Amino acid sequence: MTRQDIILILDGGHPTVGYTVSTGLNVLIGLSAVAIALETVPGLPDWAGSLLWKFEVFILSVFILEYALKVICSPKPLKYIFSFWGIIDLLSCAPALALLNPHWQAVRTLRLMRILRMLKPFHSSRILFRLRDALHLVKGELYVFGILSGVMLYISSVGIYLFEHDAQPDVFTSIPESFWWAIASFTTVGYGDMVPITTGGRFFTAIVLFIGLGIVAVPSAIITTALLETQTNLRPLRDEEKNKTEPDDQHGRDQ
Amino acid sequence: MTRQDIILILDGGHPTVGYTVSTGLNVLIGLSAVAIALETVPGLPDWAGSLLWKFEVFILSVFILEYALKVICSPKPLKYIFSFWGIIDLLSCAPALALLNPHWQAVRTLRLMRILRMLKPFHSSRILFRLRDALHLVKGELYVFGILSGVMLYISSVGIYLFEHDAQPDVFTSIPESFWWAIASFTTVGYGDMVPITTGGRFFTAIVLFIGLGIVAVPSAIITTALLETQTNLRPLRDEEKNKTEPDDQHGRDQ
Amino acid sequence: MTRQDIILILDGGHPTVGYTVSTGLNVLIGLSAVAIALETVPGLPDWAGSLLWKFEVFILSVFILEYALKVICSPKPLKYIFSFWGIIDLLSCAPALALLNPHWQAVRTLRLMRILRMLKPFHSSRILFRLRDALHLVKGELYVFGILSGVMLYISSVGIYLFEHDAQPDVFTSIPESFWWAIASFTTVGYGDMVPITTGGRFFTAIVLFIGLGIVAVPSAIITTALLETQTNLRPLRDEEKNKTEPDDQHGRDQ
Amino acid sequence: MTRQDIILILDGGHPTVGYTVSTGLNVLIGLSAVAIALETVPGLPDWAGSLLWKFEVFILSVFILEYALKVICSPKPLKYIFSFWGIIDLLSCAPALALLNPHWQAVRTLRLMRILRMLKPFHSSRILFRLRDALHLVKGELYVFGILSGVMLYISSVGIYLFEHDAQPDVFTSIPESFWWAIASFTTVGYGDMVPITTGGRFFTAIVLFIGLGIVAVPSAIITTALLETQTNLRPLRDEEKNKTEPDDQHGRDQ
Repeated sequence: MTRQDIILILDGGHPTVGYTVSTGLNVLIGLSAVAIALETVPGLPDWAGSLLWKFEVFILSVFILEYALKVICSPKPLKYIFSFWGIIDLLSCAPALALLNPHWQAVRTLRLMRILRMLKPFHSSRILFRLRDALHLVKGELYVFGILSGVMLYISSVGIYLFEHDAQPDVFTSIPESFWWAIASFTTVGYGDMVPITTGGRFFTAIVLFIGLGIVAVPSAIITTALLETQTNLRPLRDEEKNKTEPDDQHGRDQ
Repeated sequence: MTRQDIILILDGGHPTVGYTVSTGLNVLIGLSAVAIALETVPGLPDWAGSLLWKFEVFILSVFILEYALKVICSPKPLKYIFSFWGIIDLLSCAPALALLNPHWQAVRTLRLMRILRMLKPFHSSRILFRLRDALHLVKGELYVFGILSGVMLYISSVGIYLFEHDAQPDVFTSIPESFWWAIASFTTVGYGDMVPITTGGRFFTAIVLFIGLGIVAVPSAIITTALLETQTNLRPLRDEEKNKTEPDDQHGRDQ
Repeated sequence: MTRQDIILILDGGHPTVGYTVSTGLNVLIGLSAVAIALETVPGLPDWAGSLLWKFEVFILSVFILEYALKVICSPKPLKYIFSFWGIIDLLSCAPALALLNPHWQAVRTLRLMRILRMLKPFHSSRILFRLRDALHLVKGELYVFGILSGVMLYISSVGIYLFEHDAQPDVFTSIPESFWWAIASFTTVGYGDMVPITTGGRFFTAIVLFIGLGIVAVPSAIITTALLETQTNLRPLRDEEKNKTEPDDQHGRDQ
Repeated sequence: MTRQDIILILDGGHPTVGYTVSTGLNVLIGLSAVAIALETVPGLPDWAGSLLWKFEVFILSVFILEYALKVICSPKPLKYIFSFWGIIDLLSCAPALALLNPHWQAVRTLRLMRILRMLKPFHSSRILFRLRDALHLVKGELYVFGILSGVMLYISSVGIYLFEHDAQPDVFTSIPESFWWAIASFTTVGYGDMVPITTGGRFFTAIVLFIGLGIVAVPSAIITTALLETQTNLRPLRDEEKNKTEPDDQHGRDQ
């Protein structure tokens, strides 16, 4: 096994074991994410805490080993070390420092960096490239409708504050508080922690909701549309349909 | 009436009575579903409980009779018995065992298998075939955006936990609890049982909601799009419109 | 002014005053709807109640006058009286009986029939015709996805009942109650009156929400799509764009 | 620097510093909006209040200076003063009067006019022109589905009032109150302050929600569609794709 083979295996590009190794690493990252979440559950029994600790040490060993292998086997180690993914890989290993010195607990939050590694397989995928292109193309629209939505949200916050502040001074305490109401309402999440109770406030809400949902939905719709445009797999189906409805002889050769 | 006729009738394929019988069986399944639901209502009067019991016995008789007929009349009984729908049919009858021995109440939950039988008419329908094809085609996108959504949800959960845990230790008790908040928020359901109250948490929510809704909406949009693509009935309308607008030579001059 | 003129005026088809009269009648119906709503407000001052009463008498006089004129001036009175809109017109006048005999208060609820009259202008409009056609075309899809959604909702209700009944016997009391939770969740309304609190229930909710939203959104999306297809006014814009991009004579023959 | 240069700079049209100046003014407006919001936060320390006050004086000076410069340098001062943006600019400066006479505090609310100035850059942008055209084109649909939605909402309000008033007289007190419930439900915000509890009311809600969401979603969908049609930047991408699939030589000349 040459150095190049090891790099190929770790990057998931090896023809026989590449897929297995990269899937295995991703499953490990997923399990690590679950473990980080479980650690925060209050009242964990001792054996569970100890198990999570051992698992964390295991994960760290794997990632330190992987990092070391990559640095050693890389044809240009420095280039890898200072590349984006190289830094992410290093930061994923950093929590190991907390094992050496118990005072460095803060370093442990760097474990979250591992989650970003789950996006690594898409790194070279056509889908993310097209996503970036699509988002780049709709940048202008996102900007315009972002501003429009912002103005809409601001006006709604000020309006509801004027209507509701006197009736519910403890709920709609200030315009920034009302902005939270606007966010929850225009995304249609509607937590229900801040609700207008005056007739004027409700009337105002009804009007701005119907106008505003049309405007605020646009940035989200733009992102969704841009993302849906990136669906490469659906392409063949659509082309097939295209061909069925406009089947021109001369076209055939060009396509 | 030959054996084949009976099979045709029970499968709903008989030219004259097939539709009536299959509709009747589906109505029975629907009524059975309603009966199962009503049984759980607390404080039912005795006559209602007794009525539901009798109805259940009646339903069971119908399905046992149907199963028996199908096994007897099928040209290849064994093939039917071990087919997917054959097993569903058998399991639908299994709750009858609870009538024989009152200790086997657990078998009664198998009654829910009947609901699956409501999907049987679509079994051979073009719509479900196209649905399966469509879902197969978008498998790749669902995988990518499923991972993206998962990472998004995880990061949101961790973030809101860091912001809100100190302010509301009883609400945002742990990261898994916060994940529930993320689910309820990003689907825009917003139950309101967990709501950020700190300025930082609300600010964080506002930002991740606007970015995240665009990402999390995609898997749902992909499924919806894939399902809408299966609309065969709409096809004629669209083709008609296509023809109207781009049919032929002479139009060019008129338009 | 001939009889035919009066009919034309009342139907809004008269070239000069038709639009004014039909708009006036619609405004009256709108005001009547507001008045009916205001009547239910508790603690209305006497003058307001009296004003609403006088307004109701005025509205009734207008509609009785209109009905009488239509019957008298119609070329075929019987045909009008037994037509759909004729019956609606008559029922809109029926609350007048409550003025004659105070015991017939129940007749007053027929006032709500007037709201339906607001849809009369669309009666002969191309938009509603196309709407009907569109809904007719998607009937099959609505049926299939209606059943799928129903099965989905039922399975979710049973599932959440099994998970939550023991933890919250007062909230998830029975499967029909849980069905209400399923309705509120899958429409993403999320009132928050019934919220799963067990780990199992929340996990189950997360899974069914992500799968189910894709399925349950389809009937709504089908209706919305069908309705958007009826947009006649957008047509010219789209045709214009079509012409710009594919104005080719030779294509015609192949299609 | 000629007069014309100053006008160009302030309008953001100057080739070298125009963009910087207009961006700077917009950032100032944004900061001013934040400051107005922060002023309402209760329990602000004295130094913050004093800072906000100084910032407000600074903002006012900038806008008064800008207004004066525009009036002086404009080739047709009167035309500018009585133009739409001229009046907005003047009103943005009006809060200065509150500095002269403390009794004129009410003038300060005019500060909100500044927010409208954030829309000024879009004033001459193609996007807003197309937006206006698009909204003009869908005017008819918005009217029809606006009425349909209104009737739907009204019928839902009356229905839920009839079902719930007796069970929850303090919640569903009147039809106008129930209308608030209908608004919150059909926009799927679902605050949870008014929730049906009777079996009839919940059944009614389930039915009207599934039918109504399809209808009420249409006006919003129409606005969103109309706005998405205005995406000029996406156009090149789409044309490119069009060209790829139907690359016909003869087309070139016609387009």
